[in-house]
Amino acid sequence: MMYSDVVLNLPDWVRGSVEDSAGVFPTVEERMQFVIELSRQNIERKTGGPFGAGVFEADSGRLIAVGVNRVESTNCSIAHAEIMAIALAQKALASYDMGGEPDASYELVTSTEPCVMCLGAVCWSGVRTVVCGARDEDARRIGFDEGPKPQNWVRSLESRGIGVEQDVLREQAAAVLTEYRDRGGLIYNPGG
Amino acid sequence: MMYSDVVLNLPDWVRGSVEDSAGVFPTVEERMQFVIELSRQNIERKTGGPFGAGVFEADSGRLIAVGVNRVESTNCSIAHAEIMAIALAQKALASYDMGGEPDASYELVTSTEPCVMCLGAVCWSGVRTVVCGARDEDARRIGFDEGPKPQNWVRSLESRGIGVEQDVLREQAAAVLTEYRDRGGLIYNPGG
Repeated sequence: MMYSDVVLNLPDWVRGSVEDSAGVFPTVEERMQFVIELSRQNIERKTGGPFGAGVFEADSGRLIAVGVNRVESTNCSIAHAEIMAIALAQKALASYDMGGEPDASYELVTSTEPCVMCLGAVCWSGVRTVVCGARDEDARRIGFDEGPKPQNWVRSLESRGIGVEQDVLREQAAAVLTEYRDRGGLIYNPGG
Repeated sequence: MMYSDVVLNLPDWVRGSVEDSAGVFPTVEERMQFVIELSRQNIERKTGGPFGAGVFEADSGRLIAVGVNRVESTNCSIAHAEIMAIALAQKALASYDMGGEPDASYELVTSTEPCVMCLGAVCWSGVRTVVCGARDEDARRIGFDEGPKPQNWVRSLESRGIGVEQDVLREQAAAVLTEYRDRGGLIYNPGG
C-alpha cells in the first residue's frame, strides 16, 4: 500500500485558544506570550511536545496561523511547531512565499529557537522576522537535539534579510521545557 | 478563518509509476534511477519542481514511499521531495522514528543533495543512509538555493550514524535540473 498524501493537523483545543484570543497581538511580547501558552497547553493536554509557534502580520500583529509540536501524535518527525505554523499560514495566505506580498510582511514567533530543519523552513517560507523565546541550550538542557545548525545561524538568517529577535520571555518559555521534562514527557531523538 | 490542518499530496500520476515498477530495487543505482525518473516526470507533467526522492528498506530495496517537489502545486514551501518521502514513509510505517525498528533500516534516496531544511528532516527521520544524485552545486548552477548548510554536512550526518553516498548517477540527475531550467521552469526563492 503506497500512500500519496499526508495530513498534518493541530489538536482540537487549538481552535478554542485562537477563538478566545483577541486575534491581534500588537507587541512581540504579547505574541510570544500567546505561543508559550500554546506550548504549555500542548503538554498539559498531552497532544505533543513542549513547543509552540505562530505566524503574525508583522506590523499589525494579526494572527495568521499557529503551530504546536505534533511529532508523536501524528507519527511524523516533520511536524515541529514552526513547520505546522508556516504550512498553515501559507495555506491561509494561499501562497508558498510569504515574502511575495508587497503590502505585508510576516513574522514567525517560536517558543524555542528553531532546529536545523526549521531554520531551513524559515529560509524558504518568506517570513521576514523570527522572534524566539527559549534558546537552543534551553532545549538541549532537557535532552532535545537542535541538529547540525551552522555556527552563526542568526547571522546566516540576517544575511538573507530575515531579522532575528532572541530572548523574548525566555525564562517563561524555558520553564515549559523544564516542566515537560519533570512530567516525564517523551524526549524524542531518532533511534539507531 | 484559522486553518488547523494541511494536506501534502503527490500528483495522481505517481501512483501509476509506483504500480508499474517492480516495487523492489536491489541496487542503489536502480533506486536512484527510479527517483530521477520521478523528478523528470514531475517537470514533464508540470506538477512541481525537478526533484524526486524515495524511502527504501536498505537491505531488500523494497520501496516504502516516494516524494516529488510540490511547493508550487500545494502552495507550501515545506513540500520538498525529501520531506514528502519521509512523511509518507512514516505514515506507511506508522512511526515517527524509522530508526526505531530493530529488524530493518531505511534509506532515503534523493535526486539532488538535501537543502538545509531537508538535511534537518533527515536527522529527525531515523533513516540510516542518504543516497544522493546531483550535487548542491548542480542545483545552485540553475539558480536554486540550498540554504545555510553546515560546511561539512556530510560529516555532520555521519557523526550521527547516518551514512551518505554521493554522486550516484549524478549526471543523469543533474540533466533533469538543466532541462527544467531550459523549459523555463520556476526557480523559486523567497521574495523580500
